[in-house]
Amino acid sequence: MALTRLDCTKCDRTYAPGVVLNLCTACNAPLFARYDLERAARTLRPEALATRERSMWRYHEVMPVEDPAQWLTLGEGWTPLLPTPRLGARMGMKRVWVKDESGNPTGSFKARGLSAAVTMAKVLGAKAVCLPSAGNAGSALGAYAARGGLEAHVFVPKDIASLFLMETRAYGAHVETVDGLITDAGRICAGLAKEHGWYECATLKEPYRVEGKKTMGYELAEQLGWTLPDVILYPTGGGTGLIGMWKAFEEMETMGLIGSKRPRMVAVQAEGCAPIVKAHAEGKPDAPMWPGATTHAHGLRVPKALGDFLILRAVKESGGTAVAVTEAEIIQGVKDISAAEGLFVAPEGGACVAALRKLQAAGQVTPDESVVVFNTGTGFKYVENMAPLW
Amino acid sequence: MALTRLDCTKCDRTYAPGVVLNLCTACNAPLFARYDLERAARTLRPEALATRERSMWRYHEVMPVEDPAQWLTLGEGWTPLLPTPRLGARMGMKRVWVKDESGNPTGSFKARGLSAAVTMAKVLGAKAVCLPSAGNAGSALGAYAARGGLEAHVFVPKDIASLFLMETRAYGAHVETVDGLITDAGRICAGLAKEHGWYECATLKEPYRVEGKKTMGYELAEQLGWTLPDVILYPTGGGTGLIGMWKAFEEMETMGLIGSKRPRMVAVQAEGCAPIVKAHAEGKPDAPMWPGATTHAHGLRVPKALGDFLILRAVKESGGTAVAVTEAEIIQGVKDISAAEGLFVAPEGGACVAALRKLQAAGQVTPDESVVVFNTGTGFKYVENMAPLW
Repeated sequence: MALTRLDCTKCDRTYAPGVVLNLCTACNAPLFARYDLERAARTLRPEALATRERSMWRYHEVMPVEDPAQWLTLGEGWTPLLPTPRLGARMGMKRVWVKDESGNPTGSFKARGLSAAVTMAKVLGAKAVCLPSAGNAGSALGAYAARGGLEAHVFVPKDIASLFLMETRAYGAHVETVDGLITDAGRICAGLAKEHGWYECATLKEPYRVEGKKTMGYELAEQLGWTLPDVILYPTGGGTGLIGMWKAFEEMETMGLIGSKRPRMVAVQAEGCAPIVKAHAEGKPDAPMWPGATTHAHGLRVPKALGDFLILRAVKESGGTAVAVTEAEIIQGVKDISAAEGLFVAPEGGACVAALRKLQAAGQVTPDESVVVFNTGTGFKYVENMAPLW
Repeated sequence: MALTRLDCTKCDRTYAPGVVLNLCTACNAPLFARYDLERAARTLRPEALATRERSMWRYHEVMPVEDPAQWLTLGEGWTPLLPTPRLGARMGMKRVWVKDESGNPTGSFKARGLSAAVTMAKVLGAKAVCLPSAGNAGSALGAYAARGGLEAHVFVPKDIASLFLMETRAYGAHVETVDGLITDAGRICAGLAKEHGWYECATLKEPYRVEGKKTMGYELAEQLGWTLPDVILYPTGGGTGLIGMWKAFEEMETMGLIGSKRPRMVAVQAEGCAPIVKAHAEGKPDAPMWPGATTHAHGLRVPKALGDFLILRAVKESGGTAVAVTEAEIIQGVKDISAAEGLFVAPEGGACVAALRKLQAAGQVTPDESVVVFNTGTGFKYVENMAPLW
């Protein structure tokens, strides 16, 4: 296979693949999978892709597992990129698309990362996996662990919508509710993982979730005829998707699939939890813990992201920005896209719609620019969260 | 385009396409779209399909609208056909697949029918569309009407889960709750449609929803390498999908895509509303109104189906059967497939899992037979219905 090694994202350390690894043992930073891209480029060609399976595994040359028999798959990825002319027109924009992740297994983009991570966990011999979650990552972990016959442990804030508990437990996962935020859940999870020998799959704490998430970048390019849009709006909690897409663009350029042009990456957060927005505004390379984090868009309620420096670097290098929106703007965003296009999106998707409106009003995007808005999940799982604000 | 005429499913009447039509004006039976299949067969070939779009519109030669610019699409169809070896093994079956419709826009198979019907409604010049619904059809109507800029009116039983009201209204649809069942909602809808000139899109009351639904049959064949399974289990309320697949098999055989072998079609219903099961057991050609219909699987709570005679005919001709399951068995079915395969299915999908277990126990399927179980929607929209029985 093309996977050759794992590189630390902060120091010079590299690791051989093929063993269970979490963070860099020298500096505790996330690891990135690296491939023999020259080899991958020989077969990862537009004409070859045209006939491949309708899942993220179509890019198997740049995935950690190439053998289809080993994939734990429920059909994740290859989601629609929908032109949204009515929504665009209402904002004075001519070329807006929504990358709609709601149709993924378990109803969110988390399926991509966990399909890749749990597949690798099983390949590497893990028997049990665990992570802290705001809801969707936990249910995706549970689903893929069930698919693979692995034990799963999920740690969630106790104010999580009840739907997530029912769903995740239905997959047979053990779910513990924690009095606190996802960072608190993460601490408890890490402690128990060490104690029991579970493979920790928290955001960026193992190298493969980002490999699943990066396929959003490959799909964007393929769906736009191997070009990229001018602007990407991405709801940013842990930020794995943004980091992953940025990695994907580099890989694609190396393989000659795209040129050097990059979209301006816009990290969208909630005003009640906007560490990346604050750090970006202040020109800092990383983002300190956000005190008293609060938002009903639970996927955005991440007060401290392990990959903060990677998010901020991608935003800066791309000439992009970071935008915070209010709770009311998020809900209005959900309503706007539902009514205009028939898409009942997650509040994280609504946040991006709201952010685009702000950028447009501020002249930070122009009417002719091509814009991709990410909807990272279905609104169905957030009815309990959204109802009081509706 | 290949659409040549509309045939009555009961009498000899035929109609030219291109105008708004509901039932046969002579005998009030549903109409079927008919195509120039000789023409369609020239381009609808396996090798051509391999590179087409990942939606049900890939079969455009046998769809009522061939021009992509006219499709009201949100990415419906081309859903995964997932092998479910763990679920199969727990039932003593070796070759079980789930056709998982949960990733469709609006979270259910209803997206297929309503994408086709609302597309045609707009093409034919309708300004407003309406239907009665147990929930998912109404939300799909709302979504596609929003996408096309049409007015939508939806009539639902008042005990519908609150999620459906929020979702469907978010699309801008007018939703009326009715004190009664879907048949009562249908009566009110029909009266108002006549009064206001809305285009009625109730199940089989216009000819195009079934054209969307039939694509499930095309996909099954394509995904199985242009063969069909031995047995199909299908949750049967209005039955459009079963009727549509049966129509698709005939079209495909005419075009030389498959042979004459047909799966045994198994209509799955709830014990609290089993008109098709009763009529099939009694050898009747149609199914009288089921009194006091009740089940938490609201998609199955259809006491009288307009297409009853078409469902019963397909079941009989195929050598299939009709099976009723209890409320507890439905929930157990949802739990079984969630835990075995990571699929949190709608109760209608759980009913099919339960029905397969019954058929297997009764020796009506053998361990080596290939079986496709339909999951028609996501469980996320049914949490409110399932919770009291969980």
